[in-house]
Amino acid sequence: MMKIYDWFDGPYPARVRIAIAEKNLQSRVRFESVNLWKGEHKLPEFLAINYSGTLPVLELEDGTRIAECTAITEYLDNLDGAPTLTGRTALEKGLIHMMNKRTEIEFLDAVSVYFHHSTPGLGPHVELYQNPEWGNRMRDKAVRGMRYLDGVLQKQPYIAGDFFSMADIAVIGGLVFTKIVKLEVPAELEALHAWHKKVQERPSVQNWMTMSGPAPV
Amino acid sequence: MMKIYDWFDGPYPARVRIAIAEKNLQSRVRFESVNLWKGEHKLPEFLAINYSGTLPVLELEDGTRIAECTAITEYLDNLDGAPTLTGRTALEKGLIHMMNKRTEIEFLDAVSVYFHHSTPGLGPHVELYQNPEWGNRMRDKAVRGMRYLDGVLQKQPYIAGDFFSMADIAVIGGLVFTKIVKLEVPAELEALHAWHKKVQERPSVQNWMTMSGPAPV
Repeated sequence: MMKIYDWFDGPYPARVRIAIAEKNLQSRVRFESVNLWKGEHKLPEFLAINYSGTLPVLELEDGTRIAECTAITEYLDNLDGAPTLTGRTALEKGLIHMMNKRTEIEFLDAVSVYFHHSTPGLGPHVELYQNPEWGNRMRDKAVRGMRYLDGVLQKQPYIAGDFFSMADIAVIGGLVFTKIVKLEVPAELEALHAWHKKVQERPSVQNWMTMSGPAPV
Repeated sequence: MMKIYDWFDGPYPARVRIAIAEKNLQSRVRFESVNLWKGEHKLPEFLAINYSGTLPVLELEDGTRIAECTAITEYLDNLDGAPTLTGRTALEKGLIHMMNKRTEIEFLDAVSVYFHHSTPGLGPHVELYQNPEWGNRMRDKAVRGMRYLDGVLQKQPYIAGDFFSMADIAVIGGLVFTKIVKLEVPAELEALHAWHKKVQERPSVQNWMTMSGPAPV
């Protein structure tokens, strides 16, 4: 049995949960809660598991640990030798990784910096240093990023081309985060809204928050 | 013929040039200089090529463009169906992507933020906004990151395990950048220094700066 260290409603954990469901691996993982709001991910015990102090982390049966959503998704997607989320050909891999990274830089990670630096974030016991000016820049960058993604989706059905991939999952993570920070997705971004409605019909995207059972107390 | 938009001595361009040499693809690419010091990567013409305004970008013969070092490396490494830099098995892929991303976050990208925010960077006509406090935090993070990487290399010969990979190339990119910003690699990081000496013996790491011919004027 593999183990996932995560927190049930976190935007980054969402990415790996959606990948797990897309690959039908639910029965092969169990979840261990690391309470973000208590800052458990910044305690020495957890930093020994993931130097960067971020969720989620995948732990294999032999104890090997894989952190970073993209890395975990690469692992899970290639377990059965039939990748569907990270690309089959060189070109698919290239385009998916480009759009995955671009989504992180221009949208998801930018929303995260805004959350941690310009809002109360996870609270004063966790947010020991804040740079609100930087956070606000990142908020503006994320809004521009949404416009960019809308433009991409005006030209193709999914973020990296013709099929649902890891790059779409990264955008979903970003939209999960915009909800948490109450950052509005402008109504005029019609292609982005239409795509979001479409991907929300996928069971993986509907059910990620309850994948680990009832919300932890 | 594929085209690489880059700048001959840039730390991120270095990553893709090393990958090109590792894959023996030198004869299949030509280079187009985008002058970082003149801010050509921030001009509208280039932003149409890469929304994020960063180098390098790979352009295929049919005009398809792939930005982001990791994405370009995935493409080039999988062109011949025999990946050597990005992993063959699910586990290799997972570990390489983890260490590649961790190197970016904890070291390379942190040095980059320090350069652009707390030093003159590319000059006042390019660095239109600077947040020196944030830049200095990132410098300190990068120094911690080097200590972390040294610890990794005390336990294994390469950054992601037993063989040279994309993750090693990311660290080389970081070390290229430390030289530019004159950030010292502490002498006591003996494993990191020994690894650096070893990887510098690779032709790919020796020759990347002259890959595109004489330095552009």
